[in-house]
Amino acid sequence: MAPASAVNIGSLSASNFATVYNLFSLVIASMVFTALFLLLSQGRVAPRYRNALVVSATVCGIAAYHYFRIFDNFKESYPPGTSVSAAHVLSSVEFNEAYRYVDWLLTVPLLLVETVAVMALKRAESRGLLMKLVPASALMIALGYPGEIATTNSTRIIYGVLSLIPFFYLIYVLFVELSKSLVRQPVEVQPAIKRLRVSLVVLWSVYPIAYAFPLFGGDFFGGEGGFVLRQGGYSIADILAKAAYGLGIYAIARTKSRLEDPAFDEEIEPSASKTVDLANAA
Amino acid sequence: MAPASAVNIGSLSASNFATVYNLFSLVIASMVFTALFLLLSQGRVAPRYRNALVVSATVCGIAAYHYFRIFDNFKESYPPGTSVSAAHVLSSVEFNEAYRYVDWLLTVPLLLVETVAVMALKRAESRGLLMKLVPASALMIALGYPGEIATTNSTRIIYGVLSLIPFFYLIYVLFVELSKSLVRQPVEVQPAIKRLRVSLVVLWSVYPIAYAFPLFGGDFFGGEGGFVLRQGGYSIADILAKAAYGLGIYAIARTKSRLEDPAFDEEIEPSASKTVDLANAA
Repeated sequence: MAPASAVNIGSLSASNFATVYNLFSLVIASMVFTALFLLLSQGRVAPRYRNALVVSATVCGIAAYHYFRIFDNFKESYPPGTSVSAAHVLSSVEFNEAYRYVDWLLTVPLLLVETVAVMALKRAESRGLLMKLVPASALMIALGYPGEIATTNSTRIIYGVLSLIPFFYLIYVLFVELSKSLVRQPVEVQPAIKRLRVSLVVLWSVYPIAYAFPLFGGDFFGGEGGFVLRQGGYSIADILAKAAYGLGIYAIARTKSRLEDPAFDEEIEPSASKTVDLANAA
Repeated sequence: MAPASAVNIGSLSASNFATVYNLFSLVIASMVFTALFLLLSQGRVAPRYRNALVVSATVCGIAAYHYFRIFDNFKESYPPGTSVSAAHVLSSVEFNEAYRYVDWLLTVPLLLVETVAVMALKRAESRGLLMKLVPASALMIALGYPGEIATTNSTRIIYGVLSLIPFFYLIYVLFVELSKSLVRQPVEVQPAIKRLRVSLVVLWSVYPIAYAFPLFGGDFFGGEGGFVLRQGGYSIADILAKAAYGLGIYAIARTKSRLEDPAFDEEIEPSASKTVDLANAA
């Protein structure tokens, strides 16, 4: 299994290097501080939603770990040239696209776990959904990897198509089976859960498109431009699908907590209730 | 003590290097974030099960530490060649298999401690089991090490056989003595504890098999292919026997907490119980 030629392109201009480098750093900052925010905000949601926040923070933490590795790897693979404006030529250190697959293998099933967790369904119902969603999502990632590192287009196409089978199954489970549980959610959060579900499918479509770039070939998609667009696309999709998604989970958990327990409703003035107590006591 | 020739093989192809490298990184991510998840989820189990979670997190933390060392050591032992597709030739830095033995010496007894802890037995019963399980498991690891670094097959065989004696004793204690305590566990968790016990024995069998690779010899088991299979086997077995095992302990702790105290049952609506209380009070 030789490293894919599509990943290790020969050189990057100084500005292309800077663009990818800065996007990777943006992802690190987004993931680390979203994870911390979610952990620090646990007290603002009811206990039953805290697991959804911990899982969301775990997803951002795992992504942060991998982007630290990707960032360092990128600097080693494309060291500076003889001047600040010189091209960054590929060193003998491979730019390791596998970090992304290792990351997705762990985070993609967990993104489905946090989605089901925030719905706070009956145990049997949750288990039924997760027994379908988790293995299908892990299979989707595992089938993509042999195609990603393939050196021939035919291998890339075969694994790409195989990987789409569990992807379409996931869409079926999310849009048909999960809908049965969705109608029993409070009406106040139903639109938000539906939006999350749509964003999941739309954002996850970015990955197969980026995966297909080397198939398009040509000067752009087979070269430096395609590399930058692909790394940029993955980075922005990761921020939206993990950090922003985790904040969406948090918003739903907040709304549900407030609806179920007025102690979590910050619109109710704590001093007002105290005044009432004092008035009654008087 | 000369390093075993089976460990320090001369060179690795770029793709074999990448496979081992990526698996090591997968182990780091799995261990770090399982440890954090277990620590952050303590509030979701009854106080008597929190020690089982802390010990499980400790096991994953110790493993993470050793895999950080193994990962860095591996990069130093097999530096990149002249290009990204060149073979990685062994440098003057030994690939140090002893990290694994140091790790196991600490984590294997702790895995048995967390298993007994989650059962929440009577103090005398726990102590009786641990006085047998902990020394036997430490002895099993300690006896394996001289064989691992042996340069002759006969030494490897002698210590391998000696190490199997405490291993079989552990199986006896787990399947005969522990069974007496198992029947007093809630029926809801008995199958889960039995599954954990079987997985422990099945997964721990991976290690003596990998240990025996150099005995098989030949081009594959004595060379690069055997090295990759062995490191890959250890890595995946470690993820399953420590991180996945810790999550299994957590699942048992959750079920037992819920059965013993409705406050840990998230299916019971907190608002519903409050409403009833208020109605009764009126």
